[in-house]
Amino acid sequence: MDVRGYRGRALQILSDASVSVGDMVSVSCSKMTHEGIIMPRYEHTDDLHIVLKLKSGYNVGIDIQEIDSITVSGKTAEESFVQAPDPQVVGDTGFDDSVTTGSSETRRGLESDYRKKKILLLSTGGTIASRIDYRTGAVTPILSADDLLRAMPELSEIADFDSEVVTSVYSENMTPNDWLLLARRILERVTADAHDNNNYAGVIVAHGTDTMHYTSAFLSFALAGFPVPIVLTGAQRSPDRASSDAAANLAGAARFIAADGARGVYVAMHMDGGDDKIACHIGTRVRKNHTSKRDAFETIGSAPAFTITGSDVTGRRIGRFYDSDEFSPAIALDERVALIKYHPGFSPDLLGHIIDSDYKAIIFEGTGLGHVGSTLYEQIKRASKKKIFLGMTSQCVDGRTAMTVYESGRDLLNMGVVPLNDMIPEVALVKAMWAAGNYDSADEIKEIMLKNVASEMSTD
Amino acid sequence: MDVRGYRGRALQILSDASVSVGDMVSVSCSKMTHEGIIMPRYEHTDDLHIVLKLKSGYNVGIDIQEIDSITVSGKTAEESFVQAPDPQVVGDTGFDDSVTTGSSETRRGLESDYRKKKILLLSTGGTIASRIDYRTGAVTPILSADDLLRAMPELSEIADFDSEVVTSVYSENMTPNDWLLLARRILERVTADAHDNNNYAGVIVAHGTDTMHYTSAFLSFALAGFPVPIVLTGAQRSPDRASSDAAANLAGAARFIAADGARGVYVAMHMDGGDDKIACHIGTRVRKNHTSKRDAFETIGSAPAFTITGSDVTGRRIGRFYDSDEFSPAIALDERVALIKYHPGFSPDLLGHIIDSDYKAIIFEGTGLGHVGSTLYEQIKRASKKKIFLGMTSQCVDGRTAMTVYESGRDLLNMGVVPLNDMIPEVALVKAMWAAGNYDSADEIKEIMLKNVASEMSTD
Repeated sequence: MDVRGYRGRALQILSDASVSVGDMVSVSCSKMTHEGIIMPRYEHTDDLHIVLKLKSGYNVGIDIQEIDSITVSGKTAEESFVQAPDPQVVGDTGFDDSVTTGSSETRRGLESDYRKKKILLLSTGGTIASRIDYRTGAVTPILSADDLLRAMPELSEIADFDSEVVTSVYSENMTPNDWLLLARRILERVTADAHDNNNYAGVIVAHGTDTMHYTSAFLSFALAGFPVPIVLTGAQRSPDRASSDAAANLAGAARFIAADGARGVYVAMHMDGGDDKIACHIGTRVRKNHTSKRDAFETIGSAPAFTITGSDVTGRRIGRFYDSDEFSPAIALDERVALIKYHPGFSPDLLGHIIDSDYKAIIFEGTGLGHVGSTLYEQIKRASKKKIFLGMTSQCVDGRTAMTVYESGRDLLNMGVVPLNDMIPEVALVKAMWAAGNYDSADEIKEIMLKNVASEMSTD
Repeated sequence: MDVRGYRGRALQILSDASVSVGDMVSVSCSKMTHEGIIMPRYEHTDDLHIVLKLKSGYNVGIDIQEIDSITVSGKTAEESFVQAPDPQVVGDTGFDDSVTTGSSETRRGLESDYRKKKILLLSTGGTIASRIDYRTGAVTPILSADDLLRAMPELSEIADFDSEVVTSVYSENMTPNDWLLLARRILERVTADAHDNNNYAGVIVAHGTDTMHYTSAFLSFALAGFPVPIVLTGAQRSPDRASSDAAANLAGAARFIAADGARGVYVAMHMDGGDDKIACHIGTRVRKNHTSKRDAFETIGSAPAFTITGSDVTGRRIGRFYDSDEFSPAIALDERVALIKYHPGFSPDLLGHIIDSDYKAIIFEGTGLGHVGSTLYEQIKRASKKKIFLGMTSQCVDGRTAMTVYESGRDLLNMGVVPLNDMIPEVALVKAMWAAGNYDSADEIKEIMLKNVASEMSTD
């Protein structure tokens, strides 16, 4: 009996009914009866659903608790139907894998009567779209956004999805150019969709966790005021592992959007050591603070904006945020920004080299309230004269700059260094790249750096 | 009536007895009677002590709860006796301010019968040795180690102190050269003292908080195996402010040493938002994680090694630590080490410049489990060929590197990048400077970087 990927309670139900993968079955539930072919599942996905390919071509996940009985109506065993993910085979399963399609017909599952929300799922790669190699223990990226949805059929209970692969890389290899590509694609897809009067309720970006907070920061600035929420999510364990956080994170992101989540860019990941809470962090206030824990992401200086527990979404958007009625995307950047983490012994010559290398801005990750050693003063004065924007953040990460308390801070202020309050250093870097891409002069860059564009800093 | 600096209950007692600063008095306590001159106090120090200059020249703090009565025996009002801190005047008050003295006669206070421990207090500057300017709200460094002790007379109840000013700078201006100076001075003073059979129980280093964890890391390596504990402490609020944490931190450090604190280098600072707990962090496992909170310092990946609550010291030295019977100091360093915090858009040219600038080691603060983007691979290969030591830490700060899980990590391993487990990036930087100063070849540096010298990394 072929029961690929099924286990636990779901496997028990198939065994009890003598049903194999590939069988055409009739599944009788309390509300309705589904006809379709039993699909294989990824190893180690949940044991709470059985996946059917319907005649319409859609895959649906059926909650085993709702199943009254399963009857075999035919043995198909056609490999083309039951093979593990293959874009050729599953191209019409209700999720759009094409990079170029502008089509936005809403393909609803069986629950369309309930007016499910429609969500755009964009995949960029990362662990959430990866599989473990059981020989080597290594993880490699192979899943598309479409595969993700098929691996987690429970998602179809929350919303309908269109999906697209934007890129497929681990996030340590995401470049600022990929940020631009992603921002443009979000804008294009959602705009095209809106013209069809068939609006997406929101966008989910599946992303590697290593640099997710850099990407969320860029989207926050480039798409500030975007009409629907954009939620980045990922996984610290690949989706084919029993301990994977991929499904719960994706479901949390989808539930946030389905619950009319507030506008803005967010990162949705496990909130704590437990299995049931997903934190939704503001995209400019979040940092990956642990290498491996599922709850590696933390909102700096505050609690996460929202908490998703099952289908409950609680919380509120904290801080001021960009709320102009007019949404004017500014999808541009200039990579010529340096992030300098100061430490005793930091070489003035190295700073000098940066100053002479055509950088438009330097973000200091200073010590304490925003200091660097006086050994760098001469170079800083030179940078200031060259009209390079000089911003100060703190390597303490938590807290905020205060440059009038100590002599060192006052000296730096006098040299033109601009304190960036509680802006996270990485976010300041990304914001400066974005500002430098949209504005030319140091004065304009300074003005935008001090303006709260996307809740990136406190205004009190 | 001149009652400079006194307030609250202490002021009340002086007023009730019609006693002014400068008066020669007889203070009758339950156990004994003290004769001496009432000294002024710093504004905003505690209101629980009255400070007397005894005929012996010592200053003692008397707990007001133990005072039965105060009688005036004469009005001196000699300015030379009662002026605020001035080294000429107070040079013989029991604390040695001289940089050059090798003398180590133990000068005990009144409690010598109790066999108090002797502690060496070295001051380097920082907020703990600073005063606020009430006109500008700014803080400037003016206090010596001796001043510190006089501002906090309650310290004399814990131990006897010799003191010395090693340098007087805010810690953002501490240089690796200052680390060397400090380490040598600790070694000289404690060694000279031991020859006199008059051992220090430990050393307290008063230090600015901005880079305290860099200095503690250097002392941990340079003086690994040092026979007595070395405890760095500082303040987030200057000692003349009501909210100052200076006295409690100094007292906590002293109590740790007085309680036969374990060998090793530590950082002692407020543990939480309350007033009564001081955390004692292992000097290589600690980081300043908040710009302004009193409990800004945190042990990364674990709880602090010790907690000091009042006179109780609880906890244990966690992890393995250097426990050779032979103490062989290695006070040297080479500043030619770069710390590179990777981010999307990090310029390969900048890495190339570092490689061509005669650096002996590069510490990467990579993403996640220890990655950098593949855009840097060509330069990394070049660095490896040039025999520059390449170490990997994580910008997540918490957790540990694991470079066999993903392709990126395996690629970097193949290029010769060395994962440094859970070593904190700043500590890895300092250790590499120390290793490069003591060893010449990349192989030797690698060997020492992977050896646990001072509990800087987990060995499991």
